[in-house]
Amino acid sequence: MRPGQARDARITQHGCIVTIVLILGPNSGDQWLWNPLMQRATLISNGGPSMKALVYHGPGRMAWEEAPKPGISAPTDAIVRVDATTICGTDLHIMKGDLPATVDGRILGHEAVGTVEAVGSAVKNVKPGDRVLVSCVSACGACRFCREGRYGQCLGGGGWILGYMIDGTQAEFVRVPFADTSTYPVPAGVSDEDLLMLSDILPTSYEVGVLNGHIAPGDVVAIVGAGPIGLAAMMTARLFSPSHIVAIDLADTRLEAAKRFGADVVVNNGRDNPLKAVRDLTDGLGADVAIEAVGLSSTFELATELVRPGGRVANVGVHGKSATLHLETLWTRDVTITTGLVDTFSTPTLIRLLAGGQLQTSVFVTQRYALDDMMAAYDTFGRPAETGALKVVLTAGGTSPNGKVAVLAGATA
Amino acid sequence: MRPGQARDARITQHGCIVTIVLILGPNSGDQWLWNPLMQRATLISNGGPSMKALVYHGPGRMAWEEAPKPGISAPTDAIVRVDATTICGTDLHIMKGDLPATVDGRILGHEAVGTVEAVGSAVKNVKPGDRVLVSCVSACGACRFCREGRYGQCLGGGGWILGYMIDGTQAEFVRVPFADTSTYPVPAGVSDEDLLMLSDILPTSYEVGVLNGHIAPGDVVAIVGAGPIGLAAMMTARLFSPSHIVAIDLADTRLEAAKRFGADVVVNNGRDNPLKAVRDLTDGLGADVAIEAVGLSSTFELATELVRPGGRVANVGVHGKSATLHLETLWTRDVTITTGLVDTFSTPTLIRLLAGGQLQTSVFVTQRYALDDMMAAYDTFGRPAETGALKVVLTAGGTSPNGKVAVLAGATA
Repeated sequence: MRPGQARDARITQHGCIVTIVLILGPNSGDQWLWNPLMQRATLISNGGPSMKALVYHGPGRMAWEEAPKPGISAPTDAIVRVDATTICGTDLHIMKGDLPATVDGRILGHEAVGTVEAVGSAVKNVKPGDRVLVSCVSACGACRFCREGRYGQCLGGGGWILGYMIDGTQAEFVRVPFADTSTYPVPAGVSDEDLLMLSDILPTSYEVGVLNGHIAPGDVVAIVGAGPIGLAAMMTARLFSPSHIVAIDLADTRLEAAKRFGADVVVNNGRDNPLKAVRDLTDGLGADVAIEAVGLSSTFELATELVRPGGRVANVGVHGKSATLHLETLWTRDVTITTGLVDTFSTPTLIRLLAGGQLQTSVFVTQRYALDDMMAAYDTFGRPAETGALKVVLTAGGTSPNGKVAVLAGATA
Repeated sequence: MRPGQARDARITQHGCIVTIVLILGPNSGDQWLWNPLMQRATLISNGGPSMKALVYHGPGRMAWEEAPKPGISAPTDAIVRVDATTICGTDLHIMKGDLPATVDGRILGHEAVGTVEAVGSAVKNVKPGDRVLVSCVSACGACRFCREGRYGQCLGGGGWILGYMIDGTQAEFVRVPFADTSTYPVPAGVSDEDLLMLSDILPTSYEVGVLNGHIAPGDVVAIVGAGPIGLAAMMTARLFSPSHIVAIDLADTRLEAAKRFGADVVVNNGRDNPLKAVRDLTDGLGADVAIEAVGLSSTFELATELVRPGGRVANVGVHGKSATLHLETLWTRDVTITTGLVDTFSTPTLIRLLAGGQLQTSVFVTQRYALDDMMAAYDTFGRPAETGALKVVLTAGGTSPNGKVAVLAGATA
């Protein structure tokens, strides 16, 4: 944002996010969102065409409602029409208020497959009409961390920002910043639904769980949590031929799913002792690798108990609270604990595995909805113990179980 | 222990340690210590010759007193006459009661240079008269973890047991189990005092701090705690050419020492903000590596704050309590946290560095005492802020600052 553009400004502060409403003359409804963490401003054109989107209005409140259709605001942007999107456990964490940087008015969602509608002048590799996977992580491609492949920590205005710090993919259209380094072409022979699982859950579980955990052939791997992230960790852990994958969850429905995703031992820790189950497999030592895929203090602490001396704990869960680290026992145990936000450096590899048939990701999809049946999809996804939901896919032009068909307001605007 | 040896037994339990006093006839004072964790029994010959030793009698209580001189109790044992020993911060943790597995009657100490007096029938590489470094870690050499070089986690009765689970080196004699794999010959041209620093503090700080932290050229390294372990971390961190070493401590005397050991920035965190100091050096990002070398919850938590996204926290401190792990901020930050007990796999390397002049370890030694002035040495070591103590060395035949000369009761027995 160049200050010279502004004739007048109204400034409102939400936590560390400052909203500056600039009066620019004819488009007096234009609104810039200035984010001091990213040193960037985002234009929201209130006076232009509108679309439908899932808008967050503070903890516990959201609506599928009219919102301004995004436009190109930087030369590196692309505008993508959302053909398929989904809901992530992280969206539920936002709804709980665990991620206070997400402000009232934010469009949620960070996963999509779509069709490029427009690109900024600096975009080279993506053109209108291209079908692309939108990565949950946007990458400037030029900062220190991007040059290290650590895109999740991008210092140039990227990182995980979609549906968190800027408007996201649970909408008819999404503005994707740094389009050249934040989208991937849809390969031939791969369905939107399969590919959509590679926006977030597959690279997250693979990088932050399996690769950070350094799973090796013959390892005993304990995975705490058999939701979509835990299941994706089971699926990708198998690529390294562990001897056993132990899935631990409180819901029998999820443990049944875990068996289909590669777990050969399942433990309902509401009934049975997961420590005993893991120690029985490991001469009493504990798991070589424990992956935390829930995001609670108690499940993190369980992961640190499950691991053997010299083992590794990979935290994948999104946490809203601190945990207790039992250093009084762990200090001698040669344990490595990792945290991480996905970088998506593995996305090209995962796309190759998917296209080559080494991964089958459609098994994650348990329910399908029309895009503008978003509220019903959230309801289903938010009650997994009752609905059996793993991933719900919403498609433009799709049909919901209740017969609702998506009406594409944005596409016809 | 073969049950057939016993004519009678008195069994006392201290926590998980069971002392079984066996009446064997002529040697009716013989006492075996059975440790169920290690599935081993240790013979203490009460009826034989005695020696002087530092005996622990529960939290806050110890004495330099008569104790049975150890004998060979397994074919892999060596009996070593202690020529030089020292006191470790871990001994103070035992005295505080942080390590409850240490029972009343235990001789403390896990560092020594000495002369082999006797060896068991299975010892091949060490013979009476050899001068050896006694490692703080005993290694069976044959279990799963020993075969991985993870000797600190030895499952065959070794690990860190000296002066903790079995009698230690703060005595005139010490029984060293698994002598072939738990001692190192004293190289030519290296003083006992220099070499003694390689029993524990150098390999501990190097392996658990510097190597676990993966320090690389150009890194900014923050070291919390400038006691002997922190200083040894500074000394060995320099082997990897970091750009800056930031030493953080509450005592100005220790920070002065830190400058001599390789720190180029020192912060008294009682007065100044270490986060600001580290961020000023790192474009606001934080340290590449933070090493915790104190053993308190607060210093561990500081280390996790000091580290940059993608950085590494290596815990070296001995902890008696849990810490708070702020996952609500750390979950996105790609942080790696390691804990560890020294394995001493690096001891041969460190001996080569010492013999070759690439390490000078005598700078750790601030006070020297005669061996049987142990209580005065503990007093000095326990008040470092007043005494400036880093490492105190006690030698058989040495002279104390108060003029006391060691009287070697054991040597003449």
